[in-house]
Amino acid sequence: MDFGIWFLMGAAMVFFMHCGFAMVETGFTRAKNAANIIMKNLINFSLGTVCFVMIGYSIMCAEDYLFGFIGVPNLGIFTDFSNFDFSNFVFNLVFCATAATIVSGAVAERAKFSAYCLYCIILTGLIYPIQAGWVWNDKGWLAQMGYIDFAGSSAIHMVGGIAAFVGAAMLGPRIGKYVVNEETGKTEVRAIPAHSLTLGALGCLVLWFGWYGFNGAAAENLPQLGSIFLVTTVSPAFAAVTTCMFTWIKNGKPDVSMSLNGALAGLVGITAGCSSVDALGAMIIGTVAGVLLVVGVEFIDFVLHVDDPVGAIAVHGVCGVWGTLAIGLFARPIATEKGVISEAAGLFYGGGFALLGVQALGVIAIAAWTVVTISLTFYVIKKVHGLRASLEDEILGLDSTEHGLASSYADFLPVTDPGLHLSGGVPGLVTAQYVTGSADPDQAVPVVDVSTGSQISKVTIITAQTRFEALNMAFDQIGISGMTVTTVLGYGIQRGERSGMYRGVPVASKLLPKIQIDVVAGREEVAMLVDTVRKVLYTGSIGDGKIFIYDVNNVIKVRTGEEGYAALLDMPSAPA
Amino acid sequence: MDFGIWFLMGAAMVFFMHCGFAMVETGFTRAKNAANIIMKNLINFSLGTVCFVMIGYSIMCAEDYLFGFIGVPNLGIFTDFSNFDFSNFVFNLVFCATAATIVSGAVAERAKFSAYCLYCIILTGLIYPIQAGWVWNDKGWLAQMGYIDFAGSSAIHMVGGIAAFVGAAMLGPRIGKYVVNEETGKTEVRAIPAHSLTLGALGCLVLWFGWYGFNGAAAENLPQLGSIFLVTTVSPAFAAVTTCMFTWIKNGKPDVSMSLNGALAGLVGITAGCSSVDALGAMIIGTVAGVLLVVGVEFIDFVLHVDDPVGAIAVHGVCGVWGTLAIGLFARPIATEKGVISEAAGLFYGGGFALLGVQALGVIAIAAWTVVTISLTFYVIKKVHGLRASLEDEILGLDSTEHGLASSYADFLPVTDPGLHLSGGVPGLVTAQYVTGSADPDQAVPVVDVSTGSQISKVTIITAQTRFEALNMAFDQIGISGMTVTTVLGYGIQRGERSGMYRGVPVASKLLPKIQIDVVAGREEVAMLVDTVRKVLYTGSIGDGKIFIYDVNNVIKVRTGEEGYAALLDMPSAPA
Amino acid sequence: MDFGIWFLMGAAMVFFMHCGFAMVETGFTRAKNAANIIMKNLINFSLGTVCFVMIGYSIMCAEDYLFGFIGVPNLGIFTDFSNFDFSNFVFNLVFCATAATIVSGAVAERAKFSAYCLYCIILTGLIYPIQAGWVWNDKGWLAQMGYIDFAGSSAIHMVGGIAAFVGAAMLGPRIGKYVVNEETGKTEVRAIPAHSLTLGALGCLVLWFGWYGFNGAAAENLPQLGSIFLVTTVSPAFAAVTTCMFTWIKNGKPDVSMSLNGALAGLVGITAGCSSVDALGAMIIGTVAGVLLVVGVEFIDFVLHVDDPVGAIAVHGVCGVWGTLAIGLFARPIATEKGVISEAAGLFYGGGFALLGVQALGVIAIAAWTVVTISLTFYVIKKVHGLRASLEDEILGLDSTEHGLASSYADFLPVTDPGLHLSGGVPGLVTAQYVTGSADPDQAVPVVDVSTGSQISKVTIITAQTRFEALNMAFDQIGISGMTVTTVLGYGIQRGERSGMYRGVPVASKLLPKIQIDVVAGREEVAMLVDTVRKVLYTGSIGDGKIFIYDVNNVIKVRTGEEGYAALLDMPSAPA
Repeated sequence: MDFGIWFLMGAAMVFFMHCGFAMVETGFTRAKNAANIIMKNLINFSLGTVCFVMIGYSIMCAEDYLFGFIGVPNLGIFTDFSNFDFSNFVFNLVFCATAATIVSGAVAERAKFSAYCLYCIILTGLIYPIQAGWVWNDKGWLAQMGYIDFAGSSAIHMVGGIAAFVGAAMLGPRIGKYVVNEETGKTEVRAIPAHSLTLGALGCLVLWFGWYGFNGAAAENLPQLGSIFLVTTVSPAFAAVTTCMFTWIKNGKPDVSMSLNGALAGLVGITAGCSSVDALGAMIIGTVAGVLLVVGVEFIDFVLHVDDPVGAIAVHGVCGVWGTLAIGLFARPIATEKGVISEAAGLFYGGGFALLGVQALGVIAIAAWTVVTISLTFYVIKKVHGLRASLEDEILGLDSTEHGLASSYADFLPVTDPGLHLSGGVPGLVTAQYVTGSADPDQAVPVVDVSTGSQISKVTIITAQTRFEALNMAFDQIGISGMTVTTVLGYGIQRGERSGMYRGVPVASKLLPKIQIDVVAGREEVAMLVDTVRKVLYTGSIGDGKIFIYDVNNVIKVRTGEEGYAALLDMPSAPA
Repeated sequence: MDFGIWFLMGAAMVFFMHCGFAMVETGFTRAKNAANIIMKNLINFSLGTVCFVMIGYSIMCAEDYLFGFIGVPNLGIFTDFSNFDFSNFVFNLVFCATAATIVSGAVAERAKFSAYCLYCIILTGLIYPIQAGWVWNDKGWLAQMGYIDFAGSSAIHMVGGIAAFVGAAMLGPRIGKYVVNEETGKTEVRAIPAHSLTLGALGCLVLWFGWYGFNGAAAENLPQLGSIFLVTTVSPAFAAVTTCMFTWIKNGKPDVSMSLNGALAGLVGITAGCSSVDALGAMIIGTVAGVLLVVGVEFIDFVLHVDDPVGAIAVHGVCGVWGTLAIGLFARPIATEKGVISEAAGLFYGGGFALLGVQALGVIAIAAWTVVTISLTFYVIKKVHGLRASLEDEILGLDSTEHGLASSYADFLPVTDPGLHLSGGVPGLVTAQYVTGSADPDQAVPVVDVSTGSQISKVTIITAQTRFEALNMAFDQIGISGMTVTTVLGYGIQRGERSGMYRGVPVASKLLPKIQIDVVAGREEVAMLVDTVRKVLYTGSIGDGKIFIYDVNNVIKVRTGEEGYAALLDMPSAPA
Repeated sequence: MDFGIWFLMGAAMVFFMHCGFAMVETGFTRAKNAANIIMKNLINFSLGTVCFVMIGYSIMCAEDYLFGFIGVPNLGIFTDFSNFDFSNFVFNLVFCATAATIVSGAVAERAKFSAYCLYCIILTGLIYPIQAGWVWNDKGWLAQMGYIDFAGSSAIHMVGGIAAFVGAAMLGPRIGKYVVNEETGKTEVRAIPAHSLTLGALGCLVLWFGWYGFNGAAAENLPQLGSIFLVTTVSPAFAAVTTCMFTWIKNGKPDVSMSLNGALAGLVGITAGCSSVDALGAMIIGTVAGVLLVVGVEFIDFVLHVDDPVGAIAVHGVCGVWGTLAIGLFARPIATEKGVISEAAGLFYGGGFALLGVQALGVIAIAAWTVVTISLTFYVIKKVHGLRASLEDEILGLDSTEHGLASSYADFLPVTDPGLHLSGGVPGLVTAQYVTGSADPDQAVPVVDVSTGSQISKVTIITAQTRFEALNMAFDQIGISGMTVTTVLGYGIQRGERSGMYRGVPVASKLLPKIQIDVVAGREEVAMLVDTVRKVLYTGSIGDGKIFIYDVNNVIKVRTGEEGYAALLDMPSAPA
């Protein structure tokens, strides 16, 4: 009776983890996609509920379970409500939705919302429930073999991690994440920093809190629950300390977002064995997870070049495998006077290789199932519907293009380095349209020189933020790399501009974010500069921008004391 | 015993919902009012506790209950503590505060803090407890009639929603929300976007989590609690999916903030009947709530022109009514082997119209009570004390004017479109003071022309952010609509400027946010431009601003290649 | 059995308070230190767990307890896991980590991360467990004397508050917090505003929610738990209302961040006596705490000049003492039919001075122990390792210098008043390096005048944000105080600049935050201005910045109508 209430309270805490996921994922990505990520998390849970009600639950939990492999779908939740196991449904539902939501972080900032919805239906309706039945339905074939995954290192986290990997790989990286250096031919890895580490940290701490429910909800007696709480604290704590120290030694400074991930890695690692290992086991599992997380993130990023903005693959996939196998090593029989916690024994506690073998078999079977089905799912979605947002949508941000929002932070103007993620060129992605404009400005006329004697001019360009990178690349080619960039609001009758909606109401602002680029150059260079700017920005549409030219009386470089044109000559290090 | 602990844990979760309300309401409004909204939520709960201790609890729960209508006030909490029902007090208190806090979102960004405190005292001390006693005191007249509102769709959410409606209507809309188009005579509805959708989403997910306590705390047996958790998951999930799809079809894109509201609508809808309906009922209630939410928000906004920044009226009011009536339709007797969940039967389950009639009567009675008492409350506050912040306070933001805070985000400069909410004029609200300044600048002298031959000038105006709209309107009148706006920090001895406090310490900054407006115009137009700017900005006080004039050598319009003055001629589409 | 689950659930809620602490502390400080504060909170809990596992728990809780003073360390958690008290360990661990984390707010924005880790090891491994054993180990000498501190007003909050005080005092204030006015010789107190009051509010509400677990986890029967929930609601509610009213009366406006602190003060105050006092006692304790908080914050700030960015010393230290002593006044025997809540009697309930004496003795003993040991700890760390970040690190922000992060909010450019915290000079802190640059720019040449007749010039300086204050001070000396400051992105090959890392990947941006300062001055003053700027900014390194000079055709002061040079003469009140 007791544990019946706790079972539900634990489920509510697992629900709350969806808040944690939403905050981690949105915090660790860019402001221009914040609402899109939140929406994916909200709909992930909601749509997952719809699918789990309709089919998933019975496939997983039906008593009528075929060949240890799959339940026979039924709609008992509607047809025989009084005899329906309410608590078990809620419990399994929140776990199912967790497996699905792991993916949203890995595919963030570039997956189409509609494609994500389709994926979510398949995962929560079919892929997850089938393999989860193997593990947790008494009649499941893995359950029958003695496979241990108490709270889901494999059946939830590894499944989510694999789906995240396949999804992220099939989508390809965010623009600018991996850039081929034209000189060396090597792929350079770029950082795309988080827009709010504080929200990310909030999410991690909410997840840790919720994890006491995640691991503990199914406990059967108080000593077991106490032991689960203990190892669910020890493992992430050791993992976070390990990741902190490991990045400190490796990179010279302790890495904040990695350490937050480290705590999650420790939690994933202890999830399968939370009722099978003792404090020592938890300490080892957490410590190893803290290292595996860093190695995993870097291997996936630097070697595989799969772009996972939030580290979901390493946290859930890699550490999910580790946690499940670790039971085969560290499981030990634990019995207290007040109740038995665990009976299984791993390799280091006299159990030989038997349990390790079963654990390995389960990992392989579940992984194989997931790889095959999720690959097929994403492949079909890609072919039939499309997985990835368009290049322009990705640059503008999915909040705007998928949801019509001008901004998720309407009172703050994002100043994301507008060209960062295109720098150096992305073969096959940056089309001519972005580099030169879509039409030839052959109506150009020579720039009239009305300068009054100054040998130096300031050229001010005001245009859309999205055009910055093309300008930047063109300036590189003509040898001008010093400039000052300011985000401004441009006011005018912005015909043809996106305006955005908010709660069904058009956003009426005539003030739109623009970028102002100031280049100071010798008077002789102005004509060429103007010509280049026009070629790059020209599309023939309203909104191509304007160029303003001013005299500069003098320029002084502080370091050398040089003045006038001489102060500009080292433009590569200008403006500072 | 068991359920005794859960009863309190559930109450703690309801307390936590106040965190959710605070985040939703602040996230969905503007940065300049963020601290004010938080303060309203904090004081709402705290002051509500004071009032509920002093009078509300006994009026609602006293055993000495008169005519089924009202309890006899007593101070048993102080005089007979040992026999006081601690748990019941805490449980009822957190619900009472919830009813009150619903209003803070609807009146956000314009209600005076002191007026809100007064309202809060009346609602938590009298209005709420009286009608809640009808429903939940065993001797209450609605309870005696078999009225069902398990967790408060009517007694809490509808009451809050009605109070929100009356408050928002009596306050009037935020400046710029509804603008009468002078040509067509029609009222145009403007969007005022959220300053942080991520905080709003955080709040919604915290609310959903807390709702398991809200609906479940009073459960009496485990099957009932399990069933409550189930329907409390199914209804919001179906509602969120419905709102997502409905806005997607209607507006072309799935609306994020509406879908978050949709989940809340589903939760409000299932609150009354969470122990009376089955999964099918929950599914229907949620789906309908998801549609009602959108229709309700739009009706209130587009037809009634009542400005509810966070959608509180539709979520709590409209769906509160729906949820209460839905019991009359979908209630069904549910009994499991382990406990009876519900005995009532609605129209579709053989109960005929009896229950529906009682539910309708209860809704009407509670609504009538609330409309009358809350209208009287707000009316008296308005007459005696004033409800609404002054125009200037509203423009500057309540964080600054009500709490003396320079900003709730001191390290980030808000770039709210400073004139958005005045655009087009707000008859009766924008006084001459804002349009022309408070005095006549008759000491103006002709502008000396020291230009050196350029035919184009740049006029740079640096002034307070609050003066932008007036300038903008004046520029419209003289035919100049192209400009670039930059937020800058102005440094100087800012005599007479508000400086702000933080934690009792004056904020010492001499750097104050200013707005820089650059207009490029023909040389001939400069004198008129300067004259206009002076007339608009002149008040005779320190801080009126400065105007700087520069030569521009040339201007090139990218799209057409036009140069010089010709490039400026289509100023309506400048600067881009 | 029941209460066994609740005991653990309560512990999970106390864990969640660490999320609250992280949000309060980061929200109430500046954006440039946000990730550092989060990291301190994460590692505080994680490293604290490591230390508590290894030594702290047995020192505190061992049955083999020496002289009522200290337990004999053992590693029973590893060696005898089956007989280990899992729940008790988890419960005590989360409390121990709470005591430690209180300090992180008080030392925020200037303590070295490594020094904080060292402190944390000593506090969680030794200082906390020893005195906590006195109070809560049955064999502890204070426990034996009948000392009452149910949930830790003294053993946790006062200990944390004292450690916070010693740490903050030994570190010294943040740069610019206390400034000696050179004319009056008095120390002026400056406000350093919060970067996100919304996150701070979120944290406070999370803390309040978690506090139901903090105070309630150890309850032994249901009436006691209900009573604890009641007083844990009443005290903070009365405290928040009191603080709101008190600051309203005192400062003219209700203070938001203080009122949030006020709620926490009420929670700390009721922590010790939550099972010993009734509603009246809670009301008085909370009301007094709400006043003490404000008086405490102001005394510490204005009189002691100890810089506590988040108010931790007043909240936890001052109110911790108050709450513990208040038991000696307000404790009353409370027994219900269903269980005994409390047997102790304080001064006002017939207990005489006995209990008050014991409480005072306990407070003195614990305070003395903590002062001595923590002072020694910080002293040794200071001497051997160093406590405080360097001046440059503090100015740049610890996120960057301690963790290599370019920003915790990569998409938003902080616009913290760059010179605020140096204004007026900080004797002994602002070294010559910052005021004049590190080398003499003797290669300076006279500025060539290429002006074309204008009598007014605009001098635009683009340099690193960190150099603003030095420029500002120099401008003050030469009589120029009007300027406009804009944050811009400077593009160029930024040799020698910090680039930052994110998750082990270098941040590749060539766009770095710069500051643009525009000064409009008479033509005659330009040479002196340029000379001054060069002297101040010159270091001889790349990145010293550039100066640009433009003609200004005219300047008009709006208020007076003055034009040209005359409009500049009152430069002290320019630019607005």
